[in-house]
Amino acid sequence: MKKISELIQSSNEEVQLVLMLSDVNVKKTTSGDDYASMIGFDGIDKIEAKIWNFSDELKETLVSGEVYKVNARTKQYQNRTQLNILALEKINESDGYDLSMFYEKAKLSSEELAKRINQYFMKIDNSILKTIVSVLLKKHFNDFFDYPAAVSMHHNYFSGLAYHTYSMLKLSDAYLDLYDFINKDLVYAGIILHDLGKIIELSGPKGTEYTKQGKLLGHISLGYDEISKASLELGISDTEEIINLKHIILSHHGQLEYGSPKEPATPEAALIHFLDYNDSRLAALENEIKKTDKGDYTQPISPFDRRIFYVPNIKY
Amino acid sequence: MKKISELIQSSNEEVQLVLMLSDVNVKKTTSGDDYASMIGFDGIDKIEAKIWNFSDELKETLVSGEVYKVNARTKQYQNRTQLNILALEKINESDGYDLSMFYEKAKLSSEELAKRINQYFMKIDNSILKTIVSVLLKKHFNDFFDYPAAVSMHHNYFSGLAYHTYSMLKLSDAYLDLYDFINKDLVYAGIILHDLGKIIELSGPKGTEYTKQGKLLGHISLGYDEISKASLELGISDTEEIINLKHIILSHHGQLEYGSPKEPATPEAALIHFLDYNDSRLAALENEIKKTDKGDYTQPISPFDRRIFYVPNIKY
Amino acid sequence: MKKISELIQSSNEEVQLVLMLSDVNVKKTTSGDDYASMIGFDGIDKIEAKIWNFSDELKETLVSGEVYKVNARTKQYQNRTQLNILALEKINESDGYDLSMFYEKAKLSSEELAKRINQYFMKIDNSILKTIVSVLLKKHFNDFFDYPAAVSMHHNYFSGLAYHTYSMLKLSDAYLDLYDFINKDLVYAGIILHDLGKIIELSGPKGTEYTKQGKLLGHISLGYDEISKASLELGISDTEEIINLKHIILSHHGQLEYGSPKEPATPEAALIHFLDYNDSRLAALENEIKKTDKGDYTQPISPFDRRIFYVPNIKY
Amino acid sequence: MKKISELIQSSNEEVQLVLMLSDVNVKKTTSGDDYASMIGFDGIDKIEAKIWNFSDELKETLVSGEVYKVNARTKQYQNRTQLNILALEKINESDGYDLSMFYEKAKLSSEELAKRINQYFMKIDNSILKTIVSVLLKKHFNDFFDYPAAVSMHHNYFSGLAYHTYSMLKLSDAYLDLYDFINKDLVYAGIILHDLGKIIELSGPKGTEYTKQGKLLGHISLGYDEISKASLELGISDTEEIINLKHIILSHHGQLEYGSPKEPATPEAALIHFLDYNDSRLAALENEIKKTDKGDYTQPISPFDRRIFYVPNIKY
Amino acid sequence: MKKISELIQSSNEEVQLVLMLSDVNVKKTTSGDDYASMIGFDGIDKIEAKIWNFSDELKETLVSGEVYKVNARTKQYQNRTQLNILALEKINESDGYDLSMFYEKAKLSSEELAKRINQYFMKIDNSILKTIVSVLLKKHFNDFFDYPAAVSMHHNYFSGLAYHTYSMLKLSDAYLDLYDFINKDLVYAGIILHDLGKIIELSGPKGTEYTKQGKLLGHISLGYDEISKASLELGISDTEEIINLKHIILSHHGQLEYGSPKEPATPEAALIHFLDYNDSRLAALENEIKKTDKGDYTQPISPFDRRIFYVPNIKY
Amino acid sequence: MKKISELIQSSNEEVQLVLMLSDVNVKKTTSGDDYASMIGFDGIDKIEAKIWNFSDELKETLVSGEVYKVNARTKQYQNRTQLNILALEKINESDGYDLSMFYEKAKLSSEELAKRINQYFMKIDNSILKTIVSVLLKKHFNDFFDYPAAVSMHHNYFSGLAYHTYSMLKLSDAYLDLYDFINKDLVYAGIILHDLGKIIELSGPKGTEYTKQGKLLGHISLGYDEISKASLELGISDTEEIINLKHIILSHHGQLEYGSPKEPATPEAALIHFLDYNDSRLAALENEIKKTDKGDYTQPISPFDRRIFYVPNIKY
Repeated sequence: MKKISELIQSSNEEVQLVLMLSDVNVKKTTSGDDYASMIGFDGIDKIEAKIWNFSDELKETLVSGEVYKVNARTKQYQNRTQLNILALEKINESDGYDLSMFYEKAKLSSEELAKRINQYFMKIDNSILKTIVSVLLKKHFNDFFDYPAAVSMHHNYFSGLAYHTYSMLKLSDAYLDLYDFINKDLVYAGIILHDLGKIIELSGPKGTEYTKQGKLLGHISLGYDEISKASLELGISDTEEIINLKHIILSHHGQLEYGSPKEPATPEAALIHFLDYNDSRLAALENEIKKTDKGDYTQPISPFDRRIFYVPNIKY
Repeated sequence: MKKISELIQSSNEEVQLVLMLSDVNVKKTTSGDDYASMIGFDGIDKIEAKIWNFSDELKETLVSGEVYKVNARTKQYQNRTQLNILALEKINESDGYDLSMFYEKAKLSSEELAKRINQYFMKIDNSILKTIVSVLLKKHFNDFFDYPAAVSMHHNYFSGLAYHTYSMLKLSDAYLDLYDFINKDLVYAGIILHDLGKIIELSGPKGTEYTKQGKLLGHISLGYDEISKASLELGISDTEEIINLKHIILSHHGQLEYGSPKEPATPEAALIHFLDYNDSRLAALENEIKKTDKGDYTQPISPFDRRIFYVPNIKY
Repeated sequence: MKKISELIQSSNEEVQLVLMLSDVNVKKTTSGDDYASMIGFDGIDKIEAKIWNFSDELKETLVSGEVYKVNARTKQYQNRTQLNILALEKINESDGYDLSMFYEKAKLSSEELAKRINQYFMKIDNSILKTIVSVLLKKHFNDFFDYPAAVSMHHNYFSGLAYHTYSMLKLSDAYLDLYDFINKDLVYAGIILHDLGKIIELSGPKGTEYTKQGKLLGHISLGYDEISKASLELGISDTEEIINLKHIILSHHGQLEYGSPKEPATPEAALIHFLDYNDSRLAALENEIKKTDKGDYTQPISPFDRRIFYVPNIKY
Repeated sequence: MKKISELIQSSNEEVQLVLMLSDVNVKKTTSGDDYASMIGFDGIDKIEAKIWNFSDELKETLVSGEVYKVNARTKQYQNRTQLNILALEKINESDGYDLSMFYEKAKLSSEELAKRINQYFMKIDNSILKTIVSVLLKKHFNDFFDYPAAVSMHHNYFSGLAYHTYSMLKLSDAYLDLYDFINKDLVYAGIILHDLGKIIELSGPKGTEYTKQGKLLGHISLGYDEISKASLELGISDTEEIINLKHIILSHHGQLEYGSPKEPATPEAALIHFLDYNDSRLAALENEIKKTDKGDYTQPISPFDRRIFYVPNIKY
Repeated sequence: MKKISELIQSSNEEVQLVLMLSDVNVKKTTSGDDYASMIGFDGIDKIEAKIWNFSDELKETLVSGEVYKVNARTKQYQNRTQLNILALEKINESDGYDLSMFYEKAKLSSEELAKRINQYFMKIDNSILKTIVSVLLKKHFNDFFDYPAAVSMHHNYFSGLAYHTYSMLKLSDAYLDLYDFINKDLVYAGIILHDLGKIIELSGPKGTEYTKQGKLLGHISLGYDEISKASLELGISDTEEIINLKHIILSHHGQLEYGSPKEPATPEAALIHFLDYNDSRLAALENEIKKTDKGDYTQPISPFDRRIFYVPNIKY
Repeated sequence: MKKISELIQSSNEEVQLVLMLSDVNVKKTTSGDDYASMIGFDGIDKIEAKIWNFSDELKETLVSGEVYKVNARTKQYQNRTQLNILALEKINESDGYDLSMFYEKAKLSSEELAKRINQYFMKIDNSILKTIVSVLLKKHFNDFFDYPAAVSMHHNYFSGLAYHTYSMLKLSDAYLDLYDFINKDLVYAGIILHDLGKIIELSGPKGTEYTKQGKLLGHISLGYDEISKASLELGISDTEEIINLKHIILSHHGQLEYGSPKEPATPEAALIHFLDYNDSRLAALENEIKKTDKGDYTQPISPFDRRIFYVPNIKY
C-alpha cells in the first residue's frame, strides 16, 4: 500500500492505496458515457481521482464517505498527480481494519459528550421542558452524538453536533450568571434541541450530504417538526413552554435572510442565537489558526466572509 | 342616534351613536391611571374616541372589533371632533340588529367561495394530496371561509382568506394551461393550504389581531405544523407528496427576507409564490384605485413600498 | 461528415464536420498574433474550437451564428476533445441545406404567433392605442416574429420575442377577468410593445449579440424611442394613451435596480411587470425541468439566482 | 399691510398681508366639505394658513406659487400663529408691484448665464453636436434660463437649471485640462443638455410641481426624447454623436437605483455624472452653511442622507 | 416642594419643584426671540418644560444635566401637563442635598468595579500590555469609572462604561476556557481599553452629549489615539502588542458599516467584537424586560432594530 | 539576452532574460516541498514563471519587485509559454544597468511634482496648517514623492501618490473658485496629507505589498496617527485646525462601508472625498482607454465595478 505523499512525481504507474472516497460527482463525457470524479483521502493527504469506465457494478460499490482498497494508475496533470481508478474494494471496520484516521473527531468522545450534556439536562427544573428534551434525546440518541454539525468530509470547519451543543451550554452559564432575567430551563432545553433537525437534514456522519428533506425543508423546519410531533403525543402542544421552545428553534439563525422565519423575540431566543453565532465562527477560526504559524496569515475563512486572519506573535 | 358626519363642528355636546370600536390602546396618564384611546366606526366614517375613567367594568365590556351603543361628549381637537366616551353597551346580532354595514365582505359570499373552492378540490386526482386537503379543510371549515387574510379592522387591504385563495386558484389555470410541466394537483392543494396557518396566526374575523402563536411562530410555521400533524395521523408523513406540500408552504413568500425559511425549489412552489405575490398586490391596488378618480393619484399603497399610483384617464 | 459524439477520444486526427460557430472571441497570442476561440454546434452537441492562423480571409468568412463546413484537427485537452480549425466554408439554406436543426424554435411557428397576436390586437378598442400598435408592428413585422428574447446561441433560456409576447397576452386574460379595474386596451398594447426595443438592442435571430445601441442605450430606451417617434409622426405625442404606453415600457422591469428608470405607477404597468417577470422565469424553468428526470435536481437556473430546482416525483 | 413677524402673539385679529401662497393642499373635513391648507411667505418669514370656506371662486383664484393680497384672521395653535384666510386677491407685476423678494434667484442673471453658457457652446467644434445643442437651446430658450433645477418653492436647495449647468461647465474645464483622453465637445454638449428634460418634468419656475409626464416618465426619459425627436428631424438619428449624447442623458444619475436605465459606459458619461453629483451636493451644502455660524452645526442636509455638517471655525 | 405626579390636572397654577433639567433645546419664536424647551425629571417622573423669557442670565444658569429648584406655572396641553418655568436656582450636593435619586447607577459601585476590573488587569502577564493598560487607566482613572457607555440622561439603555467593561471581562473567561488558541492578555487588555475613547467622545456622566471631537472623530479613533500617544511616550509604538491592541480598538464594531475602519482580523479582535455586541444588546434587553410583566410584550428595543420582545410566562 | 516575445512557441529550451519578478507566491507541492510561482516582466511583456527547487539560498535572493538576470527552461502550458527558473542573479542600478523600463512612472517627475505641490503648500495661510504639513512632508519627503498610490507592480491603475495628490490639488482650484464657502487652507492641507498613511501601509515603490500595519490598521488610521503624533510634539493637538484635519483624513473614503470610520461632516471633507473619488476613478479609466481603439470596448475596469467602457469614435 502506497501513501499519497509517495506519488508526487509518479506518472503512468499502477499503485494500490487505502482511500476514503468522497465528493463523488458523476458527469457525462461528450459521447454521453458516465464517468466519475472524486476526492481520495489517505488519512493525511488528499488526491483527485477519476473513474473512466464507470460500470454499473462500480456505481453500486462506490458510496461517498466510505473507505476502499483502490487500484489506480497515476497521471501528471497541471503539476499535480491524479489517479485513474481501475478497481476498488470496500473496507469495513468489521473486517478488523482501524479506520479512525479517516474521520476527524471532536475533542471529546461521544460518551463523554453524552455524559456532559446529560449534566445540563439534569439541571432543567421545568417538567414540560425536561420531558420534551428527554423524549427527543432518547428518540435520536445514537445519531445525536455521532452526527456532524455541517456538510463536509474530513476537515469540516464546525465541530460535531454534540460538541457544538456542549460548547454552547458551557458558554451559556457565563451569561446566565450575569443576566438573571434569562430563564435557564428554556436556555438549556433550547440549546440541546436547536440543531436537532440536522439529524434529518444530513445523511449521516460519513460522506455527509444534504438529504431531500434537508434541501426542501431545512434543519430549522425539521427540528421544529420533531418538537411539534413529540409534544402532540405528549399532550403538551399548546403550552407556553412548547411555544417558546418552537420560537427558539425557528429564530436561532437570528435574521430572516439567514433562514430563520422569525427573528428572536424572547430573551432566551436572543441569547441562543448569539451563542450559536459565536461558537460556530470561533470553531471555524480555531481550525484555521491551528494550521497557521504565529506571525503568519491564515487561508480565507468561510464563515467570516472569507476574510484572512493574522495570528499575533505574542508570548502567552 | 347620531352619525359621525353630523358632529363636524360639535363641541361639548352629549351624543349617542352606534359604533364599532377598534384599535383599542390602553395607556397611563401621568398620574398613573389607565385611560383608553380607540377608533369608532359608524359604518361610514371613523372618529377618534377616548375613555378617561376606564373602570374595571368598562375594561371587561370593551372588546376590540365589537359594536356598541355609545354615550359620549364631543370635543374639538386640532380641527377634528373627538369623543370622550361616558358609557357603552354591547350590541349583538342575536338581539335583532343588522351589523352587516360594519364588516367589509369579500365580493363573493362564504357559501359561494366554499362551492367554488370545492370545485378545484374535486379536480385533484392524486389521492394523498386530496386526502390531506380534505382533512384540513374539514377541520377548519368555518374559520377558513370567514377569516380575513390580514390584520386590519374594516377596510383591510387584502381580500378575505378564502377569496384570496379562490383568486389564486383561478389565476393558476392560465399558467397550468400554458406550462404543462407544472403538476396541477400540487398547485391546487398548495394554493388551498398555503395560508391555512393564518387561522391560528390571527385572532378571528372581527377586531383582528395577531395571537401569541402568530407573533412567535408565524403563519408559515403554523400552517406547516397543521400539515405535519395531520399527515402524521394519516400515516403519510414521509411521502413525496407531503414533503412537496410542506416545501410549498415554507417557500411561498419567495425570499428568505420575507420570512420563508426556504426559497422555492420546485416548479409548483415557484408558481404559487408568483400567484400569491401578484394577487395580494393587485387586490391592495384595486382597493385604492376604486377610491380614486380617473386622471387622479391614489394615496400611498403599502405593499408597493408606499408608492403613489396614477389612474389612467382612458375610455374603455 | 463526422458528428461531435464520434470524436470523444480522438486526437490529432483530421476531420470534417458541419458546425454552427458562435461565441467567437478574438484574442492575441503572447507574440501579438490574432487567434480565435469559439463554440461549434452540430445540432446535438457542442465542442470548443480554435483557429490559430487567423488570416484576414478567415476573419471575413467567419460570422458568429452562421453554419460552416469545417476542416479541423482534433486534440485532447483537460479530458475533452477540442478542434483546431484548418479551413471553413459557409453553408447556406439557399444551397439546399436544411439548417433547421441548428436553430431552436419556439413551440409555435412565426405564422401561428402572428395570427394569435393579431387576435389580441383586434380586441383593442381604443383607436390611438390600436393605431400605434398597428404602425409599429407593421414597421418591424419580420423582425418581431423572428427575434429571440435574449442573447444566446441555440439553447436560449427564454422563448423567442413573439412567443414570450403571446404567452403574456394569454396570461393577462386571467387577470383582466378577475380584476375589472384594469384597462384591457392598455394591457394588450403594452404587452405587444413592451420588448419591441430588443429588435434594435440585439443583432438578429442568429448568433445573437448586443449591438452598440443595445449596450449604450438598452432595449427599454430603444423601445420607448420607437413609440416616441411613431407617435410624433402620427400627431398623437401628448395624448393620455401615449404617455401611459411610454410609462409601461419604461417601468416593465419593475424596479430601478433592474434598469427601469421609473417603477410601475399605473395598474396596467404593474400587471405587465408581473406578467413579464413570471413568464420569463417560468420559461427558463421549463427549459431546465424538461432536461431533468423526476426525483432529480436541475442545473443552477440563472434567473432564479442560480438556484437548483427539484422535480417532484408525483404521478399526474 | 402687516408682516408675519408682527403677528407672533396675535389671536383672533383681522389682518392684511401680501403673501406668496404655496404647498396648497386640498383636504376634506369629516363632513365632506373641502378646505385648503397652505404656506404663506411674505418675503422674509413663512406662516401656515387655512381656508375653511373654500368656495369654487376661491378655488379658481388660488394658484400655488402666486402672490396675493390676503385678508385673514389670526389664531394661536401649538405656540404658533396661524391664519384663517377670509379673502384673497391676486397681485401681478404688471400692476406695478415689485415681486422680486418672493423669488430666490441664482447668483447670476438669466442674461448673464445665457451669455456664459453660450461661450461654452461656441467652443464645440463637432458640427453634429453643435447643431443639436443649438436647435434644442433655441427651442426651449426662455424656459431653459428661467427654470429651477428641482421642485421647491422659495428656498430651493439647488440653484436654478441654468446656473447648475453653467457651474458644471466651469468645473469640467479643470478635468478636461488634466485628462486629455476625454472629448471636450461631448462633455460640453452633454452638460448643456443633461437636465433639459426638467423643463417638461416640472411645471415652471413658480410654485414648481411635478407634471404628469414628470411623474410617469421623468426628466431623464423626457430629455432623451427631446434629443431623439430633434435628431430625427435633423436626419442625424443614428450618428455616433447622437448615440453618445443619448447615453450621457440616460446615465447621468450614475447608478440604476438612482433612476439611470444605463450606468456610464463612456469617459464623457462618467465625467458628467461626477460633475452633476458634486455640484448638486455642494450647492445644497452651500445653502445650509451660509445659514450657520462658524463653530456651529447645520440642519440635516437632504442630499447628504440628512447628515448634519459642522462649520469649521478657522480664519481664512 | 411638589412632585410631578401631583400636577396631573393642574392648570395655570404656580408651583415649586426640584428637577433635573436635560435635553435643553434653544429655538427661536417667529419673532426671532430665543426660548428653550427641556425635560424635567424629579427622580420618578418626567415633564416637559419651557422657558419663554430666556434671558442671558438664565442662559448662563441653565446647564443640561444639572438639578435645579424651579418656579413654574402649569399648563394643560394635549392632555398632558407642561411647565412654563419662571425662575430657577441651581442645587449642589456640596450644599447638603442628596441628588442620588437623579442619577441611575450601575449595579455595582465605582469602587467595586475598580476593584474587580483591577483583578483582571492583574492577570495580564505580558509586560507591554500590562504597562499600556496601567498608564491609560491611571491617566483617566476617575472618568473611566464614572462615565456612561452612551448618550442619554437618566434611563440610558446601556450600563455605564465600567460596568460594560467588567461584564465583557467576565464573559470572556468562558470563551478563553473553551478556546485555548485565544491570547488571554490581549483579550483582557483589549476589553479594558476598547471603549476608552468614549471619555473624550462624551461630555461627562451628567447631561451627557457628544463633544465636537466625538462628532468629528468618534470614540474608535479617539481611543486609538490615546493608545498611540501613550505608546509613543513609552517607546513601545511599533511592538507587536501595540499593533494588535490598536487593531482591536479599530475593529471592535465588527463591520465597516458600523464604523470600524477595519474588520476583525485576529482571534482576539473577533472575540472582543462578539462580547461587545452581545453585552450591549443583552443589557438593553434587560432594561426593557425588567419593566414588562411575564406574558406581556416590551416596548420596541432600539439595538434590536426596534423589535418588540415577549416575556415568557414560565416558572423558574 | 532574449525578450519574452521571442519565446512564443519555445519549448524545453534553455534561455536567459532580464526580468523584474513580482507577485511571488510560495506554495507547497503535495510532497510538502516549497515551490514558487511568480510573474516575470521584461519591460514590455509578462510571463508566468516557476521555481521548483526553491532552495534556501534562492529564497534569500528572490525579493518581489527586484530585477534579475534569469536562467530558465521554457515550457508550453495551455497555449502559453511558461518558464521554469533554474538560476537567478540580482541586477542593480548601481552596477550601471538602466532599469527605468521596469518601472512605470507618473507623467511628471518626482522633482517636478515636489515643486508643484510645494506651490500649493506655499498658498496655505493658516500657520497651524502650514506647520503640520511642513513637518510631515519633511519627515516623509523621499517616500512621499516616490510611493505609488496602490498595490500593484507595473501597470498600476492609479497614478503615484504624489501625482494623485497634485491632480486633486489642481482640480480643487476649480471648486474653490466656484464655492467661496470652502476654506482653501484646509482643502490644500487635507489633500496633501489625505493619503500620507499609504507610506506606512505599503512596503515601498517596488514590488509593492501591504505591510502588517497596512493590513491590521490601514492607511486611514496610519495617516491619522502621523498627524496625531506630530501635532502632539508641536503642542497643537487640540486646535480646531488639527481636529478638522483629522476629520478629513478619517472621512475621505466618503462612506463607512468604504472604510471611513466617520462620513464627511465639514464642507472641506466633503470636497476632498469627491476629488479623491473622481481622480482615482478617472486615472484608472484613462489607463484602460489609452489601450483601446476608438469605436472599441475596454477590458472590465475594477473601480467601476468591472464595467466595460466604450470609446466614442468622434473626431475632436
